[in-house]
Amino acid sequence: MSKGRSTEPLFESVYILGTGLIGGSLALDIKASGAAGEVVGSDSDREALNSALDMGILDRHVPPTMENLGRSDLVVLAIPVLQLAGMLREGFAPGTLVTDVGSVKLPLVKAYREALSSGFRYGFVPGHPIAGDEKSGPRAARVGLYSGARVILTPIQEDDPHVHTVAALWKATGADVQVMEAGDHDEIFAWVSHLPHMAAYNIVHSVMKKNRSWVSLSGGGLKDYTRIAASNPGMWADIAVANREYLLEAMMGLRAGLDEIYKAVDSADHDALEELFQKIATARRELK
Amino acid sequence: MSKGRSTEPLFESVYILGTGLIGGSLALDIKASGAAGEVVGSDSDREALNSALDMGILDRHVPPTMENLGRSDLVVLAIPVLQLAGMLREGFAPGTLVTDVGSVKLPLVKAYREALSSGFRYGFVPGHPIAGDEKSGPRAARVGLYSGARVILTPIQEDDPHVHTVAALWKATGADVQVMEAGDHDEIFAWVSHLPHMAAYNIVHSVMKKNRSWVSLSGGGLKDYTRIAASNPGMWADIAVANREYLLEAMMGLRAGLDEIYKAVDSADHDALEELFQKIATARRELK
Repeated sequence: MSKGRSTEPLFESVYILGTGLIGGSLALDIKASGAAGEVVGSDSDREALNSALDMGILDRHVPPTMENLGRSDLVVLAIPVLQLAGMLREGFAPGTLVTDVGSVKLPLVKAYREALSSGFRYGFVPGHPIAGDEKSGPRAARVGLYSGARVILTPIQEDDPHVHTVAALWKATGADVQVMEAGDHDEIFAWVSHLPHMAAYNIVHSVMKKNRSWVSLSGGGLKDYTRIAASNPGMWADIAVANREYLLEAMMGLRAGLDEIYKAVDSADHDALEELFQKIATARRELK
Repeated sequence: MSKGRSTEPLFESVYILGTGLIGGSLALDIKASGAAGEVVGSDSDREALNSALDMGILDRHVPPTMENLGRSDLVVLAIPVLQLAGMLREGFAPGTLVTDVGSVKLPLVKAYREALSSGFRYGFVPGHPIAGDEKSGPRAARVGLYSGARVILTPIQEDDPHVHTVAALWKATGADVQVMEAGDHDEIFAWVSHLPHMAAYNIVHSVMKKNRSWVSLSGGGLKDYTRIAASNPGMWADIAVANREYLLEAMMGLRAGLDEIYKAVDSADHDALEELFQKIATARRELK
């Protein structure tokens, strides 16, 4: 229940399922900001759960039964994206308000619509905080991860009043909340996030296949890629499968671009290459 | 003239042509270590030269005539790689000892061999310090850039005594000196350095072509690439052209890898993707 008065917490209780980097940092921020009376939750990984309790990420462990989840004002599902879809389909108690932190949104919208068709009556506001790094697990969680970060919400219906409730939670962490359509989100992130990860895996893998010992000879170039490619493999396999169609389209674009640069190198066209690289270098200035 | 006694400088005079990040930082390190009695030099860019003199990178400006260059114990050519080949062909006074800092070595070996055939009698030890970042110019130069960095020397003849002289200079900066064949160098760096740069240009360019405004929406993924892609465009066009054959081979490898990942995503093969990503993520541990 959102209360809105600054002297009292926005929520009596927030439930966080999954206490890794993303869920754990959110829990720490909610507690630091006083946005919730209590932060409870669980993690299917017993070791992660114990760490989360030791570190004070969760006030207490509450098993994720439908009944327990229904008792919190807001349930945040911070679990892998393919599991998310299954859980949304399995449903929640009437009146439960659910949000998530997954990197792909359309499969979740689809799963939620199926749940509604099956007669479930819970609320769902898909969310995606643009934060995180190659570290994972509760030990990587920290206060302030979301400060100044963007959080994208992709509500199923534009006028869903639950959007304000979920937005209020994220604003308490210092994040900038932005609303867009789930399909737009998935297409954009296929290009600006999922594709770069596939490209990083690809370049490190290509060098490994050529000569594994060369990987350690890298200067500035390859090293940046190995950092990106060190991200959680299971999570990225999930994302690639969940956002398959937009990602394949983006990979086709990457391939066309590679052929274009190949041709310019092949024809030793110095001026064309310099002009192209110059144009690309300016893109950096457009980043915040 | 190498003196070898620790109480006296190794060199009476070192000449540095090109006072950008690489040449300028080397000059600062030589001065900081006391390896040379004086560091003189020049830069074809008047503004860069003035900065280098203001910042104390050079003790004094000496125009790069053949006669002046012949007066120093060692001439370091820190200029773009395509210019290097031309300068080596044009030759130096008999007895001059020349080294360089270019990212590609075979075209320089070829140019030097041509100079020898034309009757020139100067010494040349090709070199490549593995250092640098997206910043360039004398203002980016700093003491310590080479501390712990690798410097690769690719002598034309294995028993060239000049190798020790050039190695001594780099060791004075705190660098680790490694000797390899020019062809091996160019092939390895095509894969671990030049290819990653082409890949970074490609991904940023592919996103720009799809929707330029999306570049600014990037989270962790694309942002790392824009940093790599912000490197000096002229220098990278030079490198791509100079190392064309090995780079094209590496780009073919990258393309084959992209097709492999494309197929795994296309068939939604979660286990194959996770296994692949897991294998790649471990490559990071192999980096120093």
